[in-house]
Amino acid sequence: MSIVVRNPPRVEAALADQFAPHGVATVHEAQGRKGLLASYMRPIYRPAHIAGAAVTCEVAPGDNWMIHVAVEQCQAGDILVVAPTSACEDGYFGDLLATSLKARGVRGLIIDAGVRDIATLTEMGFPVWSKAVHGQGTVKETIANVNTPLVCAGALIHPGDLIVADDDGVVVVRRKEAAAVLEKAKAREANEEGKRAQLAEGVLGLDLYKMRERLAEKGLKYVDAPAED
Amino acid sequence: MSIVVRNPPRVEAALADQFAPHGVATVHEAQGRKGLLASYMRPIYRPAHIAGAAVTCEVAPGDNWMIHVAVEQCQAGDILVVAPTSACEDGYFGDLLATSLKARGVRGLIIDAGVRDIATLTEMGFPVWSKAVHGQGTVKETIANVNTPLVCAGALIHPGDLIVADDDGVVVVRRKEAAAVLEKAKAREANEEGKRAQLAEGVLGLDLYKMRERLAEKGLKYVDAPAED
Amino acid sequence: MSIVVRNPPRVEAALADQFAPHGVATVHEAQGRKGLLASYMRPIYRPAHIAGAAVTCEVAPGDNWMIHVAVEQCQAGDILVVAPTSACEDGYFGDLLATSLKARGVRGLIIDAGVRDIATLTEMGFPVWSKAVHGQGTVKETIANVNTPLVCAGALIHPGDLIVADDDGVVVVRRKEAAAVLEKAKAREANEEGKRAQLAEGVLGLDLYKMRERLAEKGLKYVDAPAED
Amino acid sequence: MSIVVRNPPRVEAALADQFAPHGVATVHEAQGRKGLLASYMRPIYRPAHIAGAAVTCEVAPGDNWMIHVAVEQCQAGDILVVAPTSACEDGYFGDLLATSLKARGVRGLIIDAGVRDIATLTEMGFPVWSKAVHGQGTVKETIANVNTPLVCAGALIHPGDLIVADDDGVVVVRRKEAAAVLEKAKAREANEEGKRAQLAEGVLGLDLYKMRERLAEKGLKYVDAPAED
Amino acid sequence: MSIVVRNPPRVEAALADQFAPHGVATVHEAQGRKGLLASYMRPIYRPAHIAGAAVTCEVAPGDNWMIHVAVEQCQAGDILVVAPTSACEDGYFGDLLATSLKARGVRGLIIDAGVRDIATLTEMGFPVWSKAVHGQGTVKETIANVNTPLVCAGALIHPGDLIVADDDGVVVVRRKEAAAVLEKAKAREANEEGKRAQLAEGVLGLDLYKMRERLAEKGLKYVDAPAED
Amino acid sequence: MSIVVRNPPRVEAALADQFAPHGVATVHEAQGRKGLLASYMRPIYRPAHIAGAAVTCEVAPGDNWMIHVAVEQCQAGDILVVAPTSACEDGYFGDLLATSLKARGVRGLIIDAGVRDIATLTEMGFPVWSKAVHGQGTVKETIANVNTPLVCAGALIHPGDLIVADDDGVVVVRRKEAAAVLEKAKAREANEEGKRAQLAEGVLGLDLYKMRERLAEKGLKYVDAPAED
Repeated sequence: MSIVVRNPPRVEAALADQFAPHGVATVHEAQGRKGLLASYMRPIYRPAHIAGAAVTCEVAPGDNWMIHVAVEQCQAGDILVVAPTSACEDGYFGDLLATSLKARGVRGLIIDAGVRDIATLTEMGFPVWSKAVHGQGTVKETIANVNTPLVCAGALIHPGDLIVADDDGVVVVRRKEAAAVLEKAKAREANEEGKRAQLAEGVLGLDLYKMRERLAEKGLKYVDAPAED
Repeated sequence: MSIVVRNPPRVEAALADQFAPHGVATVHEAQGRKGLLASYMRPIYRPAHIAGAAVTCEVAPGDNWMIHVAVEQCQAGDILVVAPTSACEDGYFGDLLATSLKARGVRGLIIDAGVRDIATLTEMGFPVWSKAVHGQGTVKETIANVNTPLVCAGALIHPGDLIVADDDGVVVVRRKEAAAVLEKAKAREANEEGKRAQLAEGVLGLDLYKMRERLAEKGLKYVDAPAED
Repeated sequence: MSIVVRNPPRVEAALADQFAPHGVATVHEAQGRKGLLASYMRPIYRPAHIAGAAVTCEVAPGDNWMIHVAVEQCQAGDILVVAPTSACEDGYFGDLLATSLKARGVRGLIIDAGVRDIATLTEMGFPVWSKAVHGQGTVKETIANVNTPLVCAGALIHPGDLIVADDDGVVVVRRKEAAAVLEKAKAREANEEGKRAQLAEGVLGLDLYKMRERLAEKGLKYVDAPAED
Repeated sequence: MSIVVRNPPRVEAALADQFAPHGVATVHEAQGRKGLLASYMRPIYRPAHIAGAAVTCEVAPGDNWMIHVAVEQCQAGDILVVAPTSACEDGYFGDLLATSLKARGVRGLIIDAGVRDIATLTEMGFPVWSKAVHGQGTVKETIANVNTPLVCAGALIHPGDLIVADDDGVVVVRRKEAAAVLEKAKAREANEEGKRAQLAEGVLGLDLYKMRERLAEKGLKYVDAPAED
Repeated sequence: MSIVVRNPPRVEAALADQFAPHGVATVHEAQGRKGLLASYMRPIYRPAHIAGAAVTCEVAPGDNWMIHVAVEQCQAGDILVVAPTSACEDGYFGDLLATSLKARGVRGLIIDAGVRDIATLTEMGFPVWSKAVHGQGTVKETIANVNTPLVCAGALIHPGDLIVADDDGVVVVRRKEAAAVLEKAKAREANEEGKRAQLAEGVLGLDLYKMRERLAEKGLKYVDAPAED
Repeated sequence: MSIVVRNPPRVEAALADQFAPHGVATVHEAQGRKGLLASYMRPIYRPAHIAGAAVTCEVAPGDNWMIHVAVEQCQAGDILVVAPTSACEDGYFGDLLATSLKARGVRGLIIDAGVRDIATLTEMGFPVWSKAVHGQGTVKETIANVNTPLVCAGALIHPGDLIVADDDGVVVVRRKEAAAVLEKAKAREANEEGKRAQLAEGVLGLDLYKMRERLAEKGLKYVDAPAED
């Protein structure tokens, strides 16, 4: 038996929207360097940057039936997250499904499998992060779960969790941790802003971060290159 | 002994040209979901979309001699299809060969190996779908066959078959099936056009494709998320 | 114990600058088809084309501390070359380090690992060739060597060697061979210019390179396709 | 901050022991085809077959410090499950750690990374399922969590969950589902036993599973091969 | 629509049996270095060495229904060859199917996907060459073709073709070419036997194959190592 | 032009022989965790363990001619190290070449490419560490260098360097560092022997290596699992 969970609690839209200026790397650091999806998840076009609440969708290998089911569970501001129950690079998703999601205000797709019609998706401005691009279509024979926790590209994602995706990849933030992570991300960016200015003026990170003493303690030695033969 | 087959029958140019508006995913579906090359075959620039008749060319690993032989067999409207006799990612093809092919009216290259000079190829507007980009050059020591059937990126291709390639990848259509596939592709696109409009208005695929009953038969259950703790 | 070698002899800047118009494929051929890095080293944006002197930097897996040390060893015109002591795709490098390198006049980064903040790096125009893009950050716990020879993406690189990188990948030229390689690259390009014109007019490579006789000696046969059934 | 959770509830040893005769494929089917680790997880020697309670251990890339911490949390009948916080194939584990685990009655190791000293581990009869075999050692600089949930080779594992591993790979069973899964596995094996006997006598699966009618409904046609030319 | 072709012409059993002493490498050379499957096709146990006639079977990704159909088409001396219509590493085949095939006298399985129950298959002595070992099971929802030509691990295979598989991999020989290839394989082995004896006595291949002159013509120079510093 | 360097200085045979009891992991640690080849280099049979002086041999992709040249440069106690000038997994080496090497007293082969005839090589007891096993043969058309430095599976190897290979992989030790590394390896093994005995008795590594204080300083906390719900 498979189930579709309706209306799981979601990270608040107003909160998700505040992640818009913060990149994946910043959010990843801000939450203690966890929650990143595997580096093979790449955007179909660049630049792209979205944040929103996860609707999770399992699919059988070579079978996209459940994506049609998941569409109905999506609402404005959501991000659809799809993972196959067994590794598959087929093109599960194309421009018709994107049209449907866009009509509902969905912000993008994260799929640990393949996608197709990417020329049209690019024209439509519907961003997708995927494992592969592949024209290979799928069937509609096997059911699976929607809005239950799943592992996507190595990361555990619950329905309603916050997803942030940009050119660097995709990160998930637990729904209940999102507010705290936002504060840390803001603080981090503010802190980096000051450092960026100093570094741009030529101050060395070795001095800015006071690394020289600790490097010496670890045993780092500086030597001059030998005179040339 | 190796052979070069001259003037194999080709899919008609007028027929191939009619595939111009049809994407790889559509053609793949229209012919019963067969004929796709592996998803690692990616275009060197995007967007790119071509259709034409295959000239097939085997090459030895690290040896591009036979591409020079194949050029002479190409005519306007053709697409050159190259596969190594053993896996190799060397850069078999660069701007000089592209200049030669372009002078003959060839529409692009499909190569289950590497390509180089891609900055120049991009400027020239000569599209290539390849397994890799690699500066590593090749030698000219070993001969092989031109215009005999070969397996390229997992798909069997005969000389004269129709090749369609776009941002989603590459598909081959048997020469004698091309006319029938074209009709099915046209019908499919027409059918999708109507669906796209409905989906854009918010009609759900679940209703449009009448999936609800069959999903229930398979045992799909809908449940409400539990009230939050 | 780890060491940092100060001021290794570098390929002369004036010499490096003359490689600007020459692509990776040309330089690779000009030096006898050696020195290429593996084809998985790809630029984060295209087009990109740089030449300069290598500053080499080892890093521990998941640890970018030594990049901070290497920055101080870089001067205008250099290219930073980073290789992990064990395979790792973490995002070792982001926009702050790029700001620091750019302030010093460094021309780009070659890293056999991951990079992040690529949207910002693209806006900044700071080119990077990497094995991966990954938001995953790193720690600062382990020291290693700067400006000692290392193997990066399969190629041996000495500090001060010439690096050339473009859309085709990355090639290293030994410092003391750079002048000779430049002459060969120039000769090669001049020679190709003439050929390109002939090929564009439709002259066949088979004739231009006088290949027909040697192909026949190897046993290549031409046959006409059989009449169609 | 990182934590070590002491004495998490474990699947009962008596229950785990009853999984000894049941293979990974059977258990995977019995629990509804979920819980498998990725197929790259391979045993270092064959045959090998274990079942036990998971002790989970995160490690930093290239750093095996936390395995030493996890050893103390292991008791007789446990299986140690290790996952790096970022992909890494270093050899985190060798014969000294195995000696320590064996002294505590631990049944084996599941590690989504590399292992070394495999000749000695094989002689000792200490089974390991790993992503890689690699002589590359690790440092002891960075801490992480022990006995918190983690994702290992694509599967979510909680401390105390049941792990079953054999020549086919590794599967995880939720602690509270283990008793029910055991019953289903037993039923499945009993059912298969009868079928095996019939199949060995030449009864066809098509008849045994009554597939012919459904195949015909799907449109399967039988045709005789054409007479030979 | 999918079809099952009954009784395709097969390479003669008596002819296939004569390939028993000849290895994959020898057969591959004897037929002009063609017909090899990709190197990722590995035996589940070693040593293993079989020859027989191909029964070909397409399967959908994650769906092994057609293998059950193909079993009925197999007869004594056959080798079952399975390829998915889209890349998939699921465990399509286990000990029950092997029991069924063994009852019919089938010699082994070649599958461009995953297999499971390998401990039992090894005990049974039923050899399998596969892309992966994976406990992940499959469904029975989608039909496909049996005994039509297919591409398996990069090689085109027709029903009735000769398959030879050993520890080095898998090679296919066209049915009508098998007799001629056998003669060449025998000649090759006889020729190698003599060479092996000479090489074992210390005669150099450089002399045995008279390579010295041709190497010199190509420009090979011998130099003594410089005296040590 | 390519060269063959005759009689490069080799690590002394008596010294190499003393590495026989020391494994790759130990040697790698003893020399400061450097010199390991990539983890994809695997032995064709296990167990296997050799040590000897490197004879280095470049080969063109798909071309094993230079191996024949290198054989003559090998003497008793040597290990042949082969690397292609561009990535290739063809079967460069089989039982005839092994017969020739064995006749000269060569101890094994390290090849960053493919090997074939592995059933025979296993029977002969001629160990090989390779990137792949592949029946695909090679040609003899292109020359390259013998006994010049090369990069093999990511490691720089000079002719005459010490190679140690076992079930964990392959490590290279610089010729002039071999004596010092041997002393460190011996010390390391002696040290481990004592620890192994303590660990076998149940002493924890945490205590043996005095890790508890440093872990606490890093912030590691121990917590009891919550009482079960």
